[in-house]
Amino acid sequence: MSYYEQHREAFLEGLKAFLRIPSISTLPEHVADVRRAAEFVAGEMRAAGIHGVELLESKGHNPLVYGEWLGAPGKPTLLLYGHYDVQPVEPLEEWKTPPFEPTVLGDNLYARGACDDKGQTYILVKAVESLLKTTGKLPVNVRFLLEGEEETGGEHIAKYVESRPARLKADAALICDTEMFAPNLPTICTGLRGMNYCEIWVQGADHDLHSGMYGGVAPNPIMAIAEILTKLKDADGHILIPGFYDRVQKPSQKELDAWASLPFDEEDYRSKEIGVKELTGEPGLSIFDRTWARPTFEVHGIRGGFVGEGAKTVIPARAVAKVSTRLVPDQQPEEAFEQLKRAVAAACPKGVTVETKFIHGAAASLIDPESPFVRAAAEALKQYFGTETVYIRSGGSIPIVGLFDKYLGFPSVLMGFGLPDDNLHAPNEKFHLPNFYRGIEAVARYLELLGK
Amino acid sequence: MSYYEQHREAFLEGLKAFLRIPSISTLPEHVADVRRAAEFVAGEMRAAGIHGVELLESKGHNPLVYGEWLGAPGKPTLLLYGHYDVQPVEPLEEWKTPPFEPTVLGDNLYARGACDDKGQTYILVKAVESLLKTTGKLPVNVRFLLEGEEETGGEHIAKYVESRPARLKADAALICDTEMFAPNLPTICTGLRGMNYCEIWVQGADHDLHSGMYGGVAPNPIMAIAEILTKLKDADGHILIPGFYDRVQKPSQKELDAWASLPFDEEDYRSKEIGVKELTGEPGLSIFDRTWARPTFEVHGIRGGFVGEGAKTVIPARAVAKVSTRLVPDQQPEEAFEQLKRAVAAACPKGVTVETKFIHGAAASLIDPESPFVRAAAEALKQYFGTETVYIRSGGSIPIVGLFDKYLGFPSVLMGFGLPDDNLHAPNEKFHLPNFYRGIEAVARYLELLGK
Repeated sequence: MSYYEQHREAFLEGLKAFLRIPSISTLPEHVADVRRAAEFVAGEMRAAGIHGVELLESKGHNPLVYGEWLGAPGKPTLLLYGHYDVQPVEPLEEWKTPPFEPTVLGDNLYARGACDDKGQTYILVKAVESLLKTTGKLPVNVRFLLEGEEETGGEHIAKYVESRPARLKADAALICDTEMFAPNLPTICTGLRGMNYCEIWVQGADHDLHSGMYGGVAPNPIMAIAEILTKLKDADGHILIPGFYDRVQKPSQKELDAWASLPFDEEDYRSKEIGVKELTGEPGLSIFDRTWARPTFEVHGIRGGFVGEGAKTVIPARAVAKVSTRLVPDQQPEEAFEQLKRAVAAACPKGVTVETKFIHGAAASLIDPESPFVRAAAEALKQYFGTETVYIRSGGSIPIVGLFDKYLGFPSVLMGFGLPDDNLHAPNEKFHLPNFYRGIEAVARYLELLGK
Repeated sequence: MSYYEQHREAFLEGLKAFLRIPSISTLPEHVADVRRAAEFVAGEMRAAGIHGVELLESKGHNPLVYGEWLGAPGKPTLLLYGHYDVQPVEPLEEWKTPPFEPTVLGDNLYARGACDDKGQTYILVKAVESLLKTTGKLPVNVRFLLEGEEETGGEHIAKYVESRPARLKADAALICDTEMFAPNLPTICTGLRGMNYCEIWVQGADHDLHSGMYGGVAPNPIMAIAEILTKLKDADGHILIPGFYDRVQKPSQKELDAWASLPFDEEDYRSKEIGVKELTGEPGLSIFDRTWARPTFEVHGIRGGFVGEGAKTVIPARAVAKVSTRLVPDQQPEEAFEQLKRAVAAACPKGVTVETKFIHGAAASLIDPESPFVRAAAEALKQYFGTETVYIRSGGSIPIVGLFDKYLGFPSVLMGFGLPDDNLHAPNEKFHLPNFYRGIEAVARYLELLGK
């Protein structure tokens, strides 16, 4: 029986203890819990044999957890990234088991953070521990960098990375915070969309008006937002912002072919995963193309006017729309924001003024699948899942990947063990336990392959 | 010294007592206050010499207050309408004097309800009282019908009027709940816009989606609402609903000429009254035409998605827009709603479903300025304000006018004593006291003229 098999019970119990800490980073009442989770994982790292474990404090922020093992001179250095904070649990009534009482049902462990990202962060710690306990050393150098505010913006880690600290010097990062394309299908994510999140503020009259008295002469800021939005994207999903597609790179034929061979049932995706009568978006492009390799423009909400029960006939003085654009290689966030801002100004109807406010942005990322760090990861996964690793992209954004690239100059390997039905950010989040155990072995094997 | 001059102090003190009762009909915590206001005004009516004063109860509703004086056989019967409930007072911090501690500053009495509509309702009671106290009788027959839920929908009075009760038999109604076009300019309102208030519900996916994962293939209900709205009205204010203008009547040339001669400074109206950089609406039509004689389509709010602080990248499963159309003669509310509903369905983009829900409606009203009831009112006003009475319309809706017409078959005379700066529904509501005193005399004189 291998070390891994012997310690399954201990791995599971350790993860459960981690999951019992309600480290919800967006809620002020959980500040102490977030710190407790940082201390817990730091303790696990020390017990694993990681050196120099410490909490990196920053005023008002949750600490980063740093640790290192640098005893393999001449070998590559891998930065291991994860996060110990979790999403809120609302709506609580939809949970079948209490979110902070980890519960095994069948092959799954249910708890908030089980997959995103405590379970996957714990894989990193336990893989390193297993190697150190069984061989007394690691095949490569590693640095851990775990954060506690991934779910609430990651300001602290962004500033830290931007300062280019010497102790983050590495050759590549390993991030376990993504998912497999399908159960038993080992997956590496080679691309992420970037994002600009903005607010479009529209001001009409200087006070709210009664639509009876002034309807017919007063501009309506909500209507103005509707006019602006429809000038930014047409009903077929084409973004109408001038210049917006100029830098957009088409995926390589090899990548498109790989996507075309993924096991995928579009009808299931439409009716079960999304639950919609009809998919929309740019005609003539595949679903993978539309969600992974094309930019988006979406409106997330409009505030202003009356939305209570019943009827109030107000023409609001102002309204604001929350919007985002997802960005793809090689769009630049700053340039894309300027393009949006100009397009909004040009679309502004008479009678109102408009202002576009930048909230935050992140660049898209592409990782070269031919990189030795990626190839070793694919090989390690293949060995533990028994099937060829597939390469996908994700339509989401992981800003840290762009920051590592921009400020520290190394690529990130996105090796995820989540499953599409793991309910991230939703009630009944779970982690598929076979993936947890195989993940520990696959990561350890990855380090071994990198060290050869 | 006339009876009116002798009793100014008493009129003012009585109104102040009425105003001290916080009869806010939309707030459940003021249920007892609303009833107290009904009892107060009923007491004043009895003291004035009105017969058969009683509260007409209805389960769950604020009582109507009825009273009559029918001692003038062969003379016309006038229904006197007003309401004793008031609007909420928020934002309280913007009031310069407490809203329920009536305070005289200069020529104005400040309090919630001072003008809308306790002050004007009290004019009706005191006019009748003055005639009865000085002459022992009235020159015409009168019935009072006062309601306590005008500010919250008026369901009770609508049902009562629809039942065509014998005791509401009359030749015309007098409603004191409107305003004068300008200070010292006696005004009769001869037209009101009607309204349909509706909700447009749009459903996309069956659950909220992450814009990273699904942006590019998932329909966005807020964007769908924007597309629908812009297909219902263009940026020049033209309503694009098929058939919507078919029944719209152009005002007579006489009416247009009268409006053109009203004292009006468009630049003041734009910059001070509305406070907007530019007026909008249908080109080529006057402001009076656009606000009094043309229908509108307005959106009052959109609910759905994320509108909190910061950023959340949700594609909401559903969204709802609150919208209204103001209607003008001869548009029919039921037909106009069906037109809207069909236009919304036709404008619905792919991927989502839409439903248009009717909330409430009211027909537009036009009152013949040649009616003897209107001419006598104009003459009475002229005698007390010393200048020719002007005829205007209002862009707002007073549903009771349409109900009186439809179910009881008589016209309503809208003789208002408010001023444009009386802050109805807003902080620092006031009533111009000279208008209060002149209003009592003008209404009494109106009854005298009608009795001739």
